Amino acid sequence: MDDASVNEWLGYAKSWATHAGAMIVDAREQANFSEQYKSGHELVTSTDLVIDAYLCRQIKQTFPEHLILSEESSPDLELANNSEIPVWVIDPIDGTINFAQGLLHVAVSIAVYYRGERWVGVVHAPFLGETYFAIKGQGAWLNGEALKVSGRSELRNAIVATGFPYNKDSLPDLLTLLSRVLENCQDIRRNGSAALDLCAVARGQMDAYYESVKPWDMAAGALIAVEAGAKVGHFAESQQSWPTLINGDYLIAATPDVYQGLLDILQVAKK
Amino acid sequence: MDDASVNEWLGYAKSWATHAGAMIVDAREQANFSEQYKSGHELVTSTDLVIDAYLCRQIKQTFPEHLILSEESSPDLELANNSEIPVWVIDPIDGTINFAQGLLHVAVSIAVYYRGERWVGVVHAPFLGETYFAIKGQGAWLNGEALKVSGRSELRNAIVATGFPYNKDSLPDLLTLLSRVLENCQDIRRNGSAALDLCAVARGQMDAYYESVKPWDMAAGALIAVEAGAKVGHFAESQQSWPTLINGDYLIAATPDVYQGLLDILQVAKK
Repeated sequence: MDDASVNEWLGYAKSWATHAGAMIVDAREQANFSEQYKSGHELVTSTDLVIDAYLCRQIKQTFPEHLILSEESSPDLELANNSEIPVWVIDPIDGTINFAQGLLHVAVSIAVYYRGERWVGVVHAPFLGETYFAIKGQGAWLNGEALKVSGRSELRNAIVATGFPYNKDSLPDLLTLLSRVLENCQDIRRNGSAALDLCAVARGQMDAYYESVKPWDMAAGALIAVEAGAKVGHFAESQQSWPTLINGDYLIAATPDVYQGLLDILQVAKK
Repeated sequence: MDDASVNEWLGYAKSWATHAGAMIVDAREQANFSEQYKSGHELVTSTDLVIDAYLCRQIKQTFPEHLILSEESSPDLELANNSEIPVWVIDPIDGTINFAQGLLHVAVSIAVYYRGERWVGVVHAPFLGETYFAIKGQGAWLNGEALKVSGRSELRNAIVATGFPYNKDSLPDLLTLLSRVLENCQDIRRNGSAALDLCAVARGQMDAYYESVKPWDMAAGALIAVEAGAKVGHFAESQQSWPTLINGDYLIAATPDVYQGLLDILQVAKK
């Protein structure tokens, strides 16, 4: 990929994410949104849809030939045959419950996936004043400062971020995983935004992260984590058809020294 | 109790908590602290001890006849025979791991307990710029703004804060509780500071909270939650000899409508 295109994608992604963030802050300050539950008990607010429409409009106007994979408007995009077209993988609000509850961990996540690679990732957290971004092979930054994972080497002292699915069917498996992690690590954290959990690993605030999430939750954050020095992979074989690098099934991210130990624990627990 | 004494206690508690908070921010910015593990794997930093010494010195100088119950320097204070002397219940850093990891949920917690009642509670979160406080019977505030719990009425949509003990012996029981909560509520959050979890309930960011914690973790936060309209109690009988209102064993706090449903779940799971 030529640098000019990648830098242009990054510039647009940062600009749109920042503008979307301001819209999110406004909507919450004015309590100007409604709440619904989709597919059972997964919350979606009118603001998710407004931000999704805004981002899709910007992308279509600027790059009419590109594709969009979005949680809210195009979650079923078939990517297998589209390797020659850049795909914008977006989550208008990662942390919708946090948004509705008045919590801080809320993010706009935008990544560009093309020819089997993640090229650009932007995660903007408007209530925290944090903009994380990365370019494949060039590093990761928070508000302009270079990011680096923690130096944690012992799993026993590691702080591990994780999350729990809306779908309660997988709860027994999930509790088995959690039990093993709590037995073998220092503690867990549950902030409610996968994108920001991956950025916390990138920043060294968390030593590891694992969860099963969707492409739009992890495409940007996983690139940011990798570019900050994290190892990112999967602790079990996915049943989903997403390309590996935007497949959030059984996702694991950690400092290089903690990665294998955590992977072993999760793989044993998963069996 | 006369208002003058209570207001004086509050004034001192806010002033000391704010100063302690500035010391905590300085220590982290300058990476000016060392880490140790006490009783196995519970982290304590040199900053915990410095802040504890600062708070104890202030209290002793100002109220030489008062008692101090502190996590770091006097965790074994016998309170049964001391009902006629005010007791300052303090946690110099609630969220020590968060402090060391560079996370935001870190608090100084100060309460005054006297004649079987909590009279004053202050929880100051220096990295969040938040000072929560309450006076018994008069209300709770965040940076001067009155606090009120959320209007959540359905347990199924409730966001529940909780935590996990350093001591891993109780893990099986704890996972049984967690499983029941995840089955019956929207989701959990784990921020790593009990004091701030209670304040989040007071503020309506969380709909409920449960955990087994120590007096210094909850004395201030529980008063703040109650004064903001939360119901606060215990979901099992404590084996500890702490007076009820500063006993953090099997602690539960929730909006009035969510309280009974969550209590039922936790009581069944505990049996």
